[in-house]
Amino acid sequence: MNHSNILKFIQKAHYTTNRSILPSKTIKTILKDNSTNVSVRGWVRSVRKQKQISFATINDGSTLKGIQAILNEKDAEKLSTGTCVELYGSLIPSPGKEQSKELNVEKMKILGECDSTYPLQKKRHSLEFLRTIGHLRMRGNTGSAVLRVRNAANEGLHDFFKSQEFILTNTPILTSHDCEGGGEVFKISPIDTTNPTEFFKKPVYLTVSGQLHAEITALAMSRVYTFGPVFRAEESMTSRHLAEFWMLEAEMAFIDELAPLLDVTEANVQETTRYVLDTCSEDLSFFNQWVDKSLLERLQKSIAKPYVRMTYSEAIDVLQKAQNKHKFQFPTEWGSSLQSEHERYLASEYCKHPVFITDYPAELKPFYMRANEDGKTVGCFDLLLPGIGELVGGSLREERYAILEQKMREAKMNIEDYQWYLDLRKYGSAPHGGYGIGFERLLLWLTGLENVREVIPMPRWVGHCKY
Amino acid sequence: MNHSNILKFIQKAHYTTNRSILPSKTIKTILKDNSTNVSVRGWVRSVRKQKQISFATINDGSTLKGIQAILNEKDAEKLSTGTCVELYGSLIPSPGKEQSKELNVEKMKILGECDSTYPLQKKRHSLEFLRTIGHLRMRGNTGSAVLRVRNAANEGLHDFFKSQEFILTNTPILTSHDCEGGGEVFKISPIDTTNPTEFFKKPVYLTVSGQLHAEITALAMSRVYTFGPVFRAEESMTSRHLAEFWMLEAEMAFIDELAPLLDVTEANVQETTRYVLDTCSEDLSFFNQWVDKSLLERLQKSIAKPYVRMTYSEAIDVLQKAQNKHKFQFPTEWGSSLQSEHERYLASEYCKHPVFITDYPAELKPFYMRANEDGKTVGCFDLLLPGIGELVGGSLREERYAILEQKMREAKMNIEDYQWYLDLRKYGSAPHGGYGIGFERLLLWLTGLENVREVIPMPRWVGHCKY
Repeated sequence: MNHSNILKFIQKAHYTTNRSILPSKTIKTILKDNSTNVSVRGWVRSVRKQKQISFATINDGSTLKGIQAILNEKDAEKLSTGTCVELYGSLIPSPGKEQSKELNVEKMKILGECDSTYPLQKKRHSLEFLRTIGHLRMRGNTGSAVLRVRNAANEGLHDFFKSQEFILTNTPILTSHDCEGGGEVFKISPIDTTNPTEFFKKPVYLTVSGQLHAEITALAMSRVYTFGPVFRAEESMTSRHLAEFWMLEAEMAFIDELAPLLDVTEANVQETTRYVLDTCSEDLSFFNQWVDKSLLERLQKSIAKPYVRMTYSEAIDVLQKAQNKHKFQFPTEWGSSLQSEHERYLASEYCKHPVFITDYPAELKPFYMRANEDGKTVGCFDLLLPGIGELVGGSLREERYAILEQKMREAKMNIEDYQWYLDLRKYGSAPHGGYGIGFERLLLWLTGLENVREVIPMPRWVGHCKY
Repeated sequence: MNHSNILKFIQKAHYTTNRSILPSKTIKTILKDNSTNVSVRGWVRSVRKQKQISFATINDGSTLKGIQAILNEKDAEKLSTGTCVELYGSLIPSPGKEQSKELNVEKMKILGECDSTYPLQKKRHSLEFLRTIGHLRMRGNTGSAVLRVRNAANEGLHDFFKSQEFILTNTPILTSHDCEGGGEVFKISPIDTTNPTEFFKKPVYLTVSGQLHAEITALAMSRVYTFGPVFRAEESMTSRHLAEFWMLEAEMAFIDELAPLLDVTEANVQETTRYVLDTCSEDLSFFNQWVDKSLLERLQKSIAKPYVRMTYSEAIDVLQKAQNKHKFQFPTEWGSSLQSEHERYLASEYCKHPVFITDYPAELKPFYMRANEDGKTVGCFDLLLPGIGELVGGSLREERYAILEQKMREAKMNIEDYQWYLDLRKYGSAPHGGYGIGFERLLLWLTGLENVREVIPMPRWVGHCKY
């Protein structure tokens, strides 16, 4: 190929934004379009062989229900659940009530046969069983609906922050500080252990939170957020904990009280919920029918009314008054932690609505939270959701150098290692604050599922790191 | 607070999408709005004290240039570069040619003073020096412009995939396979080394690529992408390599030739470039003036014309013909790797445009790439950019069980560990392919900067993990 031949490729632009690049169409688009002659590609979910004609449901992941195909007996014989096919035919109105259109197949091509040992048969499988075949579970209704909702929640979050002029910053996974996690932090090393020197010449850990790094960016760009994986080497095997999970963290300068921080948090969760309700109605109806019959009502109510706001002290009052009826296992004295049983009572029974608990005792919270004027509490909050518990934690950050340094000394931190963090208070400090949303917990809220292992593609927890 | 008091918070919704939640406004919005009485918050970039009036430039990260404030001498005396201030005043037309409006300050409040040791003074600093103060460099022009472009590139990428019906899937960071990286993989362990059992009961590594995991999702959802950090324990200290960097990986089912894969890749890079050109013109002009005088022309040209496409064999021909004029250090025989010098010649000199090189010899490429019918090459490509080198690598994936298994045996892989990957070819296999874009290299392309350490907020490379 000579030079002029190659350069002939450099022609006039042929792009128009939003045109479809791939030659094939998704089933979602095919069902929306007005074409009659179409080709459909996907996996067989089920086959029903009848005397004259047979039916197969084909799904390519773009919608919950896929498309119903009408086949002759000979073609249907070649299909089983899991087969990958390409079907040509005409789209016709469907007499059935499950779908408005169906595909009258004229030509069929098998792209990939499915071995008879395929573990996903038409019957309903338990979520626990599906977890053991994580590389196939997305081919079922629950697995694929989760992925579509996860994708929409991602979009909703980014949309919200764009509308509020936040800039996405990518805080690092590898970090030289381990201040937050204690023993629950993962440490890294190069695989080549014959090399005695460490790659970074010092201990390096997997991040437990991007907050301290996000503060760096917020004190230059005013409004920032970071969204990425964080890690906990937590041994507990609850339905709310993973060793690797996604965290959305927002950080903003120029706020000096909790109210606007709560406003942003509330709008963030509400707008994301609204976005998912708007874009995933078919999937949410599926979850409402099969997983949690109160899902749609609960989500609708949660975006129609502001969240409840109460201080920690008010919450302690409420808990103490409820103590006669509810035998709480843990203490409800001022100064004690709010345990799951307390959080559950406050959100699910007392408020029956998302509730912010603010201004916890300083002793219960980390060094960086801003001291309130009462000398006892800090400017912080947890957002508790009915049925979920804590979804968001946030605070104003201590922006006063002397107070922060004192708190770091009390926490027995090595000041030298965190001089950069103190520097942010030395060179044009600004009042600021932020919060973190556990993304998988948000997905429990949006789907009604009960275990975080169901809502992340490849869950990792103690003893489990498959694939 | 009694029950009815708390429930009074549950009132009618007060949200309308896209309303601004925070009470303060960014300088970008203030300059766009038509308000005259405004309050501005930000950091002082410079102060010029004159006889009667003084000037200060205030920046909050929302724009490159910030806003010019006119102050009296007494207020100006209190300011230095880095001070954080809140200014009240009226926005008036500016006589200067640098800005259309300026702020006539009526009231000033200092939010955070700046210590005189502040390392960012008005003079221009070298990028190497700025790297040593990574927690402050975003307060300068280059650092903040990079973050705005990074944010816009993020948006452009997500927009593109949404327009093409791809679903975002989050592939895991922690993985039990180390097949791709060889000795360049990081291994993890819990920090508590007194505990002799490993957390996951087996060796676990940091991912070098989400591709194999993305294939799982693509073979259920048809079109997927993943965007997150990946890791290489690479000892080399080049301007193109980081130990932690972001990778965009797309994977799509139902393509059985390279052309549509190249089409998607080309549209992806072009649309993202176009998005950044459209939304960051001020920042790109800055880079064009101070960093790379050919930037804007190069980017404009790159979206106006399709990329060049040639096979590896054609590329070898071109290189051999050029050998008289260019004394290449490495061989240019068919079967030898394309080295940086070759890639540079092809993209920067021969094509002077982005160029796809396709169909490399199988021996040079990993086991999962689809064998071509010639028995010698595989269906793959690299996208080379002038001045950057390799930006994207991609391929069709081997979807035929027997051929894939044979290649895995030849690569001496433990078949048992990868049975899940083979399963994808056993249960309804589909022709599919994908590619990966190194996000920091894309940012070099978009900014004209030369070192990837400049375009990621907290760079990590051998011996360096600050903060």
